[in-house]
Amino acid sequence: MENYSAFLTLVGSIIAIVFAIITAKKVMKYSEGTEKMKKIAQSIREGANAYLKRQYTVVSIFFGGMFLILGAMSLANLLTPYVPFAFLTGGFFSGLSGFIGMKIATASNARTANACREGLNKGLRVAFSAGSVMGFTVVGLGLFDISLWFILLKFVFKLEAAEITSAMLTFGMGASSMALFARVGGGIFTKAADVGADLVGKVETGIPEDDPRNPAVIADNVGDNVGDVAGMGADLYESYVGSVISAMALGVAAFAGDIKAASLPMVLAAVGVICSIVGSFFVKTGEKAEQKILLKALRRGTNLSAVLIAALAFPIVYFVMGKENINLYFSIIAGLVAGVAIGFSTEYFTSDTYKPTRNLAKKSETGSATIIIGGVGLGMMSTAVPIVIIAACVIAAYFFAGGFSSAAAGLYGVAVAAVGMLSTLGITLATDAYGPVADNAGGIAQMAGLEEEVRERTDALDSLGNTTAATGKGFAIGSAALTALALIASYKDQVVKVLSDLGTGETIDLSIMNPTVLIGLFIGACLPFVFAALTMNSVGKAAESVVVEVRRQFREIKGIMTGEADADYASCVDLCTKASLREMILPTITAVIVPIVTGLIFGYNGVIGMLAGATATGFLMAIFMSNSGGAWDNAKKYIESGEFGGKGSSNHKAAVVGDTVGDPFKDTSGPSINILIKLLSMVSIVFATLVVNYHIL
Amino acid sequence: MENYSAFLTLVGSIIAIVFAIITAKKVMKYSEGTEKMKKIAQSIREGANAYLKRQYTVVSIFFGGMFLILGAMSLANLLTPYVPFAFLTGGFFSGLSGFIGMKIATASNARTANACREGLNKGLRVAFSAGSVMGFTVVGLGLFDISLWFILLKFVFKLEAAEITSAMLTFGMGASSMALFARVGGGIFTKAADVGADLVGKVETGIPEDDPRNPAVIADNVGDNVGDVAGMGADLYESYVGSVISAMALGVAAFAGDIKAASLPMVLAAVGVICSIVGSFFVKTGEKAEQKILLKALRRGTNLSAVLIAALAFPIVYFVMGKENINLYFSIIAGLVAGVAIGFSTEYFTSDTYKPTRNLAKKSETGSATIIIGGVGLGMMSTAVPIVIIAACVIAAYFFAGGFSSAAAGLYGVAVAAVGMLSTLGITLATDAYGPVADNAGGIAQMAGLEEEVRERTDALDSLGNTTAATGKGFAIGSAALTALALIASYKDQVVKVLSDLGTGETIDLSIMNPTVLIGLFIGACLPFVFAALTMNSVGKAAESVVVEVRRQFREIKGIMTGEADADYASCVDLCTKASLREMILPTITAVIVPIVTGLIFGYNGVIGMLAGATATGFLMAIFMSNSGGAWDNAKKYIESGEFGGKGSSNHKAAVVGDTVGDPFKDTSGPSINILIKLLSMVSIVFATLVVNYHIL
Repeated sequence: MENYSAFLTLVGSIIAIVFAIITAKKVMKYSEGTEKMKKIAQSIREGANAYLKRQYTVVSIFFGGMFLILGAMSLANLLTPYVPFAFLTGGFFSGLSGFIGMKIATASNARTANACREGLNKGLRVAFSAGSVMGFTVVGLGLFDISLWFILLKFVFKLEAAEITSAMLTFGMGASSMALFARVGGGIFTKAADVGADLVGKVETGIPEDDPRNPAVIADNVGDNVGDVAGMGADLYESYVGSVISAMALGVAAFAGDIKAASLPMVLAAVGVICSIVGSFFVKTGEKAEQKILLKALRRGTNLSAVLIAALAFPIVYFVMGKENINLYFSIIAGLVAGVAIGFSTEYFTSDTYKPTRNLAKKSETGSATIIIGGVGLGMMSTAVPIVIIAACVIAAYFFAGGFSSAAAGLYGVAVAAVGMLSTLGITLATDAYGPVADNAGGIAQMAGLEEEVRERTDALDSLGNTTAATGKGFAIGSAALTALALIASYKDQVVKVLSDLGTGETIDLSIMNPTVLIGLFIGACLPFVFAALTMNSVGKAAESVVVEVRRQFREIKGIMTGEADADYASCVDLCTKASLREMILPTITAVIVPIVTGLIFGYNGVIGMLAGATATGFLMAIFMSNSGGAWDNAKKYIESGEFGGKGSSNHKAAVVGDTVGDPFKDTSGPSINILIKLLSMVSIVFATLVVNYHIL
Repeated sequence: MENYSAFLTLVGSIIAIVFAIITAKKVMKYSEGTEKMKKIAQSIREGANAYLKRQYTVVSIFFGGMFLILGAMSLANLLTPYVPFAFLTGGFFSGLSGFIGMKIATASNARTANACREGLNKGLRVAFSAGSVMGFTVVGLGLFDISLWFILLKFVFKLEAAEITSAMLTFGMGASSMALFARVGGGIFTKAADVGADLVGKVETGIPEDDPRNPAVIADNVGDNVGDVAGMGADLYESYVGSVISAMALGVAAFAGDIKAASLPMVLAAVGVICSIVGSFFVKTGEKAEQKILLKALRRGTNLSAVLIAALAFPIVYFVMGKENINLYFSIIAGLVAGVAIGFSTEYFTSDTYKPTRNLAKKSETGSATIIIGGVGLGMMSTAVPIVIIAACVIAAYFFAGGFSSAAAGLYGVAVAAVGMLSTLGITLATDAYGPVADNAGGIAQMAGLEEEVRERTDALDSLGNTTAATGKGFAIGSAALTALALIASYKDQVVKVLSDLGTGETIDLSIMNPTVLIGLFIGACLPFVFAALTMNSVGKAAESVVVEVRRQFREIKGIMTGEADADYASCVDLCTKASLREMILPTITAVIVPIVTGLIFGYNGVIGMLAGATATGFLMAIFMSNSGGAWDNAKKYIESGEFGGKGSSNHKAAVVGDTVGDPFKDTSGPSINILIKLLSMVSIVFATLVVNYHIL
């Protein structure tokens, strides 16, 4: 069985890619609508393309430099020769996932708007199909990369199981670096444009969202694509691949080099793809634009996929791992359940159908300061539930995998739980990625002056996107924590191996009272704070320049408010592009350098302390920032629906301030931290031999 | 030497108390000024007294309950019989420190305002003297409690050194519980009143700060006394005592029961008192109200004290610990230097003489949302410097104390560094506590309609108070981190002792990869977030009720705006009192229950993980929240000084929103977290025997 598992995975990946291609072709058959719609869509496309092109140029310099460093290290025997190449492919596929997602999203936004002219169901089909293309591209490319490397290393280079998984771990570093660039750069772009457009347009000038008179409106729509789509694509590629390869590595360690333990995560992921495809056929709705009905339509798809994989995981574990390891099945289920539970918690804290966000909306009555204090409090409070869920999941996955008799087996269980959580990523990502498409469609409908009911339909789709995005974020954050823990365990295994190869008798001392571990812990805990600050400041700086430019245009371009003169959209797009590319470099470089420097000073014990600290606070900060931001966004929407004074009231203005503060929280800093905590581990793993050989304390 | 050290400490404590009494008498000789001033001061006094009376009633129920629980546990042999009584005295003296501080502060606010009518120097003398009374009361009572218990346990009950320090650790739990109640309750009161008064008065109605027409103005001034004075007094009593007793306990552990290691922290603290008294004589200024000159006046006092103790610590270490342990001197110096360095970092990030806060003020130009984002970013970024300082301090203190050959000795070095940091608390607290007095004096000057120049002088004193408060906060946060680490080490020692007494062969496993440690770490890391959320939500709730009440009065009381009718101040004071007492209970109870529940489920390994996680994120959150809040406050003041549009501009309005958000950050949640992390350790220590005997995992 285990000998064929890589080929099975390859088949799964090809099915996913073919399904994505077929779906993309279907989407492209729809019309983009009127000439005006086409023109707007074209501008958005051009802006997004131009941005990504320049982003990839910048990123390729980083990748080139890292390739040389890794190459030099492998010549110095500090790395195996596969590492530099694995690093490149990880980065390449991660970037490609984002690129394809962006391509299809910018091709389907006008198509969705146009389909909404005919009916809600048709609109949902188009938007959801676009999301599916992205979802299945991500999982398809991920499995492709994994299975190809596995086949290459096992059947061509004929390596041992431990060598295979050890080499494969390093393409995770490529994927994570690329993802971080994409998330941070895209996140800064989208929020700088959004904040800039809102502050001058909505708050100062009082024109509606997506009004064509606003010079930043195209930049705002471009931002949705480069941040929420391309950034998310690269991000989730990294999560998916990271969870699978870390489970493979721990499996081989736990089962004394038995390749079957590396097969389980691959097979599970491949079968998950099929389950997701089946589920996606069940997503359709009627004509009533009620959120409940739409949500039910999407939930039908994701729930069905989850139930299918929950059922099929049992025979998979049975056949791959044998009867004696059947309890691993429950580790997988623990992961699945935890993902769903964190999703529910996110939804509870951020959806305006529940008390917390409604109470937050009410705080707008006493002004923007109280809604800000309330939102920060809400976000911080909301960390408690996911912490308990993850704690329960880790203990359960560890226990079922037999951790209390073998720690290595237990940690493998935790890693497998992460794979279980992400196994149906194809469809959960589809329901997530369709959001920005619907958002863009709404923008196009507004700018092209389509009928009011079209905008209502796109709004219904968009608002639903916020809820499904909450669920998606639950999976992303939960899996990030589990994968990060698995990667820390992999790092430890790596260090132990290098130490025993060295044979100096030096041993690892991970006691939390060891001062290097403790100081590492403090440094690591600090990183998410610094990282969040860097990215927020970047958004702030970029947004300020947009504000200044938009104000300038309103002041200098005569007739812009009456519609007689066109705004200069391109200058805003250009501003955001330059600012986000400039600003994305420091945070990413920081994430790469800190683990190396920490290791060289405080040694591997310090590194493990640092990773644990970063994972703990990173998890908390990601939840805090995502949930605060989500709740502010929905509190504002709740007021816009007519509650607490409705649109244009002073309460609404206060809520807009909250929403604006929340923008970088939820769409730039929060999601980037998920990548950060894994990148730190990946970098540590790649530089493990260096650090074990050279460290001061 | 070591046999007399407790008596020497007792003498030090008596000198401090006598000095406080003499200074208080001097302050009381000044006049309270006009009849109107006396009347206002009387209202503030009454409100503060009424609040504290009710607070102590609520708190005494908690203390009574805990006394019974601890008594029952000591009957069941889970605690020594001294513990319940030690717990009570810790709480009593902590409360008393706050009470006396509040008494002198409410007696000297009008006196300071009146002295400012005659000149700035005189105003400074009165305010600083009031601060000194509080500072020396805190250290005096702290040393009194310590030396008395030591003498009692050693010379009356004739206990062994280890038994003495173990019993003494538990009065830290009493002090910490009391401090948390005082900080949280007072913090909620002061910020609810402040936010409520500002939002309706300044923002909505446009009347100035401290305008007598504002119904919440007396409540605001009462709040300064019960929060910034009584809360801070109890808080720093706890820090001071906590650092000394944890160092004593670790010393006895490191030096195999040798009592001299317990003597060093006591003697150091006692001599620090004398240095502080000497320093305080050098605080005076000329008549020019320039911040630089005033700052120099205060700095002269604190710097002189620090230099004196740095010089005297050498002979102290030499005589108490002997020539062979002279390197401990450098551990003490590491602590002193770290305290000063963190203070500078705080000042750099929050003072408007430096770039970060000036840049933040500039962000007001693009509205309240960007200044909020900027302030959050600034606060998060500012965590990096103190983390590096504390890491360096811990490593240095550990190294000099010989930690790399004996871990116990190293940890003693860390604890001694904390004592070094706090040794001159008498004078640093004086420079800190005089701030609220000056603030209140300004309020009285405004309300009593004194000449413009009086208000200018009190403003100069107040604004300086913000800078010295920054330094004070640096010491409080830095020492909290070091003391918390020392307490974790004490907990570990306690667990090891109980385990060896039990003799079951069960051993401690503190590896960070042990799942119970790891889960404990996650839970602990989450606690400061939840705690901050609880306290912020409390402020929000209480402030909302104040806003509603103030709006009602403006609406219903005719002639309030023209000054023909008086506002109903008492109803606002009453509202704040009720709200803060109601809201302070949950956070404090949470802090007591979580360590016990965590221990019963995840065992002592889980508890240590939890304590480490809480200390790391608690330290970060405390810095983040304090510095964000401080920077917003000073950015607003910078604008009020005429920059970026000055008072009344739209930029100023945006900055007021920032300041309002920062209020609970810096004065409620941030400082409470410092106490939280120590209380968690203290509770864990007291319940150690219970947890070792009964735990699930």
